[in-house]
Amino acid sequence: MDSAVLVGELADKARKAARSLSTASGTERKAALEAIAQALEARSSEILAANEFDMIAARAEDMHPQMQDRLLLTDSRIAGMADGARQVAALPDPLGRTLKESTLPNGLHLRQTTVPFGVVGMVYEARPNVTVDAAVILLMSGNAALLRGSSTARNSNEILINVMKDALATTSIDPEVLQLIPSDDRSTVKALLTARGRVDLVIPRGSAQLIRMVVDEATVPTIETGAGVCHVFVDEFADVAKALPIVLNSKIHRPSVCNAAETLLVHKAIAPTFLPLALKALTDAGVALHGDSTVQKVAEKFGITSTPAIEENWSTEYGILEMNVAVVDSVDAAADHIAKYGTNHTEAIVTENQANADRFIALADCAAVMINASTRFTDGEQMGFGAEIGISNQKLHARGPMGLEAMTTATWIVTGNGQIRI
Amino acid sequence: MDSAVLVGELADKARKAARSLSTASGTERKAALEAIAQALEARSSEILAANEFDMIAARAEDMHPQMQDRLLLTDSRIAGMADGARQVAALPDPLGRTLKESTLPNGLHLRQTTVPFGVVGMVYEARPNVTVDAAVILLMSGNAALLRGSSTARNSNEILINVMKDALATTSIDPEVLQLIPSDDRSTVKALLTARGRVDLVIPRGSAQLIRMVVDEATVPTIETGAGVCHVFVDEFADVAKALPIVLNSKIHRPSVCNAAETLLVHKAIAPTFLPLALKALTDAGVALHGDSTVQKVAEKFGITSTPAIEENWSTEYGILEMNVAVVDSVDAAADHIAKYGTNHTEAIVTENQANADRFIALADCAAVMINASTRFTDGEQMGFGAEIGISNQKLHARGPMGLEAMTTATWIVTGNGQIRI
Repeated sequence: MDSAVLVGELADKARKAARSLSTASGTERKAALEAIAQALEARSSEILAANEFDMIAARAEDMHPQMQDRLLLTDSRIAGMADGARQVAALPDPLGRTLKESTLPNGLHLRQTTVPFGVVGMVYEARPNVTVDAAVILLMSGNAALLRGSSTARNSNEILINVMKDALATTSIDPEVLQLIPSDDRSTVKALLTARGRVDLVIPRGSAQLIRMVVDEATVPTIETGAGVCHVFVDEFADVAKALPIVLNSKIHRPSVCNAAETLLVHKAIAPTFLPLALKALTDAGVALHGDSTVQKVAEKFGITSTPAIEENWSTEYGILEMNVAVVDSVDAAADHIAKYGTNHTEAIVTENQANADRFIALADCAAVMINASTRFTDGEQMGFGAEIGISNQKLHARGPMGLEAMTTATWIVTGNGQIRI
Repeated sequence: MDSAVLVGELADKARKAARSLSTASGTERKAALEAIAQALEARSSEILAANEFDMIAARAEDMHPQMQDRLLLTDSRIAGMADGARQVAALPDPLGRTLKESTLPNGLHLRQTTVPFGVVGMVYEARPNVTVDAAVILLMSGNAALLRGSSTARNSNEILINVMKDALATTSIDPEVLQLIPSDDRSTVKALLTARGRVDLVIPRGSAQLIRMVVDEATVPTIETGAGVCHVFVDEFADVAKALPIVLNSKIHRPSVCNAAETLLVHKAIAPTFLPLALKALTDAGVALHGDSTVQKVAEKFGITSTPAIEENWSTEYGILEMNVAVVDSVDAAADHIAKYGTNHTEAIVTENQANADRFIALADCAAVMINASTRFTDGEQMGFGAEIGISNQKLHARGPMGLEAMTTATWIVTGNGQIRI
């Protein structure tokens, strides 16, 4: 069958089934998540067996060990998914919250309240846990889910969807609210991205390449996630005792994730004291450095290895132990650099001067500004959201970590007793 | 110059100037709006003279009288624009509002606060008042404005932009935050819609055709506005004394606007009593009717003129005194019809039964649901927003009338004293 037709039919089926969600109470949606958690635990051996098929193929294809690790399911990872479902069920119900309320002089009562989007698509890579994590967040926020995972996780995704659908069949929620989009070829991704009017939102989760493709090809609304070229700016008024651990933690704590820092910017006034310390500490920690001309001179003077940064370094999300270092003249110059090369994700300033912090906040133009803290704190769990479906890089709708609330939209309920416009 | 290059340069100029806005206090932005209001009043004769050039061309081209009326400026309309600027200045400052705030166990302080988008584009038709209305809303919300009006309003738009820029030159705000995009040919619209990374948001305001083009061609984020195929559903438990005025008001009060109703849905149980009354009242008011087969039988029986509705009628936004009428079996059947033909704008139910109202709310999937009130109340001014930049038809970011708040995004400000992730 043509992919556009197939995806359109799955979307329509999901939308029809979604009425069982939009009319369900919070208690009913929580019960559905508990049923899913129990089913995952009860059927873990089936899930592991299916996952082993994917792992055999992955090993045969010599998949990168890090990717194999992401694909692998274990008893404790399945327990983790079940726990995740229960944690989401324990969060405050995101639906029916009153955002605004008023009564007009003519007696009309206005209430703006949260409602589901409707049908939400997810496009993601070979991480089967996303299949469950996304499904439970979308169900709890009242949305039907069209899940398009990777073909390399096909067997794992199929059993997980089947287990969740069987669990829903024991509840008031129509199992058809969950749909796995076939991953045989790329055409189903394209079909999902262009199902305008049938899919309300598509969220990509994965590599910068995947996200770029989604943004370029989509005619349905999307939320751009993930890309992070984050900076740490050490201001002239920085406390060096705070600056050094923040720089190190931002770079080396978990270099593969989007909130890791890629570039260190140092104010020229503090560079003579701070730069030698920072360069040494970073290289001691195994970080390969790319410096601007000033940094190169300092590195040379202190016998520290650093290669001259080329233009493309400044906009590269390394994901590994590499870091750019530059010296800047002012807060504004730091903001200029960030405006040119940043991705509007997380920017940190280390300073004891509130006026400089405030100016940095006003100019940084990003989802999260860290004042004297590591960039690594831009994270749904760290920020206390309880669940995260991704980190939005865009300015529309949701910015930064997205939890249950970000998966809702709003409706005005206007109640009258016959009012007309005069 | 190539349009993409030109628009890119104007966007960059606007973004640079926008720093004078993102670092300005609310008092400074209010002062800028007051300066604009005074300048509009002081230079009204210049504005009228420029507008007369556009009007001469419009008359020579035999422009539709209704469009000529939209293009025309008068002393009282200029006073209205100045008043509008003062009203926006009097609203609560949309920037720096705290949306969420908490302190984590590790001492990190989190505050989510409203900030400007940055550079916002508007694409609109030959209504010079939009040039001022949009500019003041965008300035007050801290955004630079790229305004792409119609070439038929070129002289009016140019003088209005010059008057506003001259006014800004007397304040702390850089006049370059306002940029008029040349309207000589369509290529500048396309350039604005694809200036990804240089323009943060584009809002179209105008015909369904314009909005469709924007949504199809844009790679920058957009907010879809305006299209309204709105329905009034008269439930079996409707109070006829409320239903009749609501139906009439929704259709005839101002048929050209997006919150006017296009289709009347009547529950079969109330149809025998309500339908003859409604059809007669509508035709008496000059409304041409398109009925389904049941409606056609009733119309024939009572000697009322109605043509059989064809498929395309149900999804047509007439904008004039025409209306579709259908009989449905239930609340769910009404919702099915709305899901198939509606535009997620405004849907009304007339009923005295709360359970039916609640089910309609859960299924209507739109920006505003009216319970026993006219569809005409979906309006920023009516709803008490004080200013409106358009009515969003989409589910991302803003739904329904958009005021100052909808022109902001959010940033997390995370303040620590050296915290790192462990």
